[in-house]
Amino acid sequence: MRAYLDHNATTPLRAEAREAMISAMEVYGNPSSVHSEGRKAKAILERARGDIASAFGADGADVIFTSSATESAALALSGRELHAAGVEHDAVNAWTQNDLDVDAQGTVVVHDPSASCVQLANSETGVVQYLPDGVLVSDMTQAFGKLPVAFNWTGAQMGLISAHKLGGPKGIGALVVKRGTEVPAQLLGGGQEMGRRAGTENVIGAAGFAAAAKAAAQDLADGVWDRVASLRDMLEDRLSAEAPDAIIVGKGVKRLPNTTAVAVPGWKGETQVMQMDLAGFAISAGSACSSGKVRASKVLTAMGFDELTAASAIRVSLGPHTSEQDVMGFADKWLAQMNKHRASARQKD
Amino acid sequence: MRAYLDHNATTPLRAEAREAMISAMEVYGNPSSVHSEGRKAKAILERARGDIASAFGADGADVIFTSSATESAALALSGRELHAAGVEHDAVNAWTQNDLDVDAQGTVVVHDPSASCVQLANSETGVVQYLPDGVLVSDMTQAFGKLPVAFNWTGAQMGLISAHKLGGPKGIGALVVKRGTEVPAQLLGGGQEMGRRAGTENVIGAAGFAAAAKAAAQDLADGVWDRVASLRDMLEDRLSAEAPDAIIVGKGVKRLPNTTAVAVPGWKGETQVMQMDLAGFAISAGSACSSGKVRASKVLTAMGFDELTAASAIRVSLGPHTSEQDVMGFADKWLAQMNKHRASARQKD
Repeated sequence: MRAYLDHNATTPLRAEAREAMISAMEVYGNPSSVHSEGRKAKAILERARGDIASAFGADGADVIFTSSATESAALALSGRELHAAGVEHDAVNAWTQNDLDVDAQGTVVVHDPSASCVQLANSETGVVQYLPDGVLVSDMTQAFGKLPVAFNWTGAQMGLISAHKLGGPKGIGALVVKRGTEVPAQLLGGGQEMGRRAGTENVIGAAGFAAAAKAAAQDLADGVWDRVASLRDMLEDRLSAEAPDAIIVGKGVKRLPNTTAVAVPGWKGETQVMQMDLAGFAISAGSACSSGKVRASKVLTAMGFDELTAASAIRVSLGPHTSEQDVMGFADKWLAQMNKHRASARQKD
Repeated sequence: MRAYLDHNATTPLRAEAREAMISAMEVYGNPSSVHSEGRKAKAILERARGDIASAFGADGADVIFTSSATESAALALSGRELHAAGVEHDAVNAWTQNDLDVDAQGTVVVHDPSASCVQLANSETGVVQYLPDGVLVSDMTQAFGKLPVAFNWTGAQMGLISAHKLGGPKGIGALVVKRGTEVPAQLLGGGQEMGRRAGTENVIGAAGFAAAAKAAAQDLADGVWDRVASLRDMLEDRLSAEAPDAIIVGKGVKRLPNTTAVAVPGWKGETQVMQMDLAGFAISAGSACSSGKVRASKVLTAMGFDELTAASAIRVSLGPHTSEQDVMGFADKWLAQMNKHRASARQKD
């Protein structure tokens, strides 16, 4: 029996999303067609748009569907040369001036919000940022569905979100913008998405995204993540007790309820991921977005950790269905491996 | 009982695609994750890539997944300033110099293949182009699945394709390129798609695309489109016999087996689409990609037709399951409406 503890990389499809997608498969018109079949597809798409806005606290804002948060980042950021910190996802940092300071707890220092892009929560450490009012772009991909985010109250002009981080399918995301924000289209040749993103719409994906967002909002209301947070705390207490020199990153600040980033300097994250995989636990080292490449975490490096520590970090990210058994089972195996690593390191000395 | 005769706008999801997608829903890893869950997702993605290459006669070429043929066009064409004709889709013409001549049958005159983009088949008229060897980019979206296309034998360096035109889901397409072609990424921040397109991959969509492409290739081998072509011919013979002054566009040249573009100058295409929709037939006027806007067909305009004729064109596009009853039922209703239109036009004179 394996335990999947890598929910920040991607999540299993929620039953509600699965059902909505299968149901949308029966509706086959092109949302841009004026005939009855087209209008039925358009209705699914627009209902999905409204449901996502509602789950995201973004009523009245424009939800522009994209194929991923990565595409949303390109759409929001390209040509704007915003300021950002090195703790942002590569999909953000690829478009920004990466000149904002970060402290050792992962907090970003913002000088000019309207010229900055600031993430709401970090994918690797779970560290949550205080968003200054008027921040132009915020990557809310990891926060949406795990924290009670109300886009309209965050003070951000644009927010990036993704379906597959909250139980929806991979291949669909959105850029949510306050009405009136100028977003020049990058995909051209059709008037879809209010003229901001051409291409026939992913109707099945949108239906799945909306159903997942609704279910995620319900989970939040039901306190599911409070239970997850207490499992996360149990895990961290145990690791701290039995491996007192392991570094739990961002321990002192507000974090996502499901994320633990832990580093044992000198024990490579990559090795840990493989050992835990063999032991039946899916975790990650750094971000999963680089086609299997694992290297020193750029997030930890930006926070001022040295290369050795940054290359030794792993991320354990829990989901709504993670059990105490999953978490304690992981702790058993990880601590056992750590002790083996230490013994072998001592022999080498 | 409605008849869907708008398969060039989009197609119903094939049963094989539906099944493959539902099966892929169970596999939830991120293809970029190194653990077992990630590798399972990666295996689905790579199998899909191979199946599409095989169905498209593109073994050895690179299949870069995108979210649509529109995105494939942007990826292939942006920054290249290729020559193209006005009969291309807007998603192509948005990036090209539109200076190639087209004759009245829709044939494009190409001067410099390596600096040109030429579609394989037109979405509105079905007209098939002869692709000169070495054409840099070809929009094969409409041809793939309806004609026996072997990418490796077309002489094109890059081909645009889309899943939802051949029974796959909306929201996934591909850019197929001969190995070694330089394709600078436009979505950045991850090494996915061989470094050419960042963003977590649409695994469920890719599985559906591959299953649809395989089924479409089987249909071609089984002669399904020969039957469709004979239905199309029956339709055109009947329209020509009972409405001798209706213009069947591209009648004299090689066309897709399923497409009829017909114009009765002065009888607005938009009106016909609405009348036929009420009568139970889904057809289109111009392209469906402009969010419900209907205007004079740019394709017919590029072929030299006057505005009145170009605004009077409709497209009837059949699918693998279209029946003689669908086609003859359409002809009955359309001819009856045309006669009404003529009677009313005569009264106004």
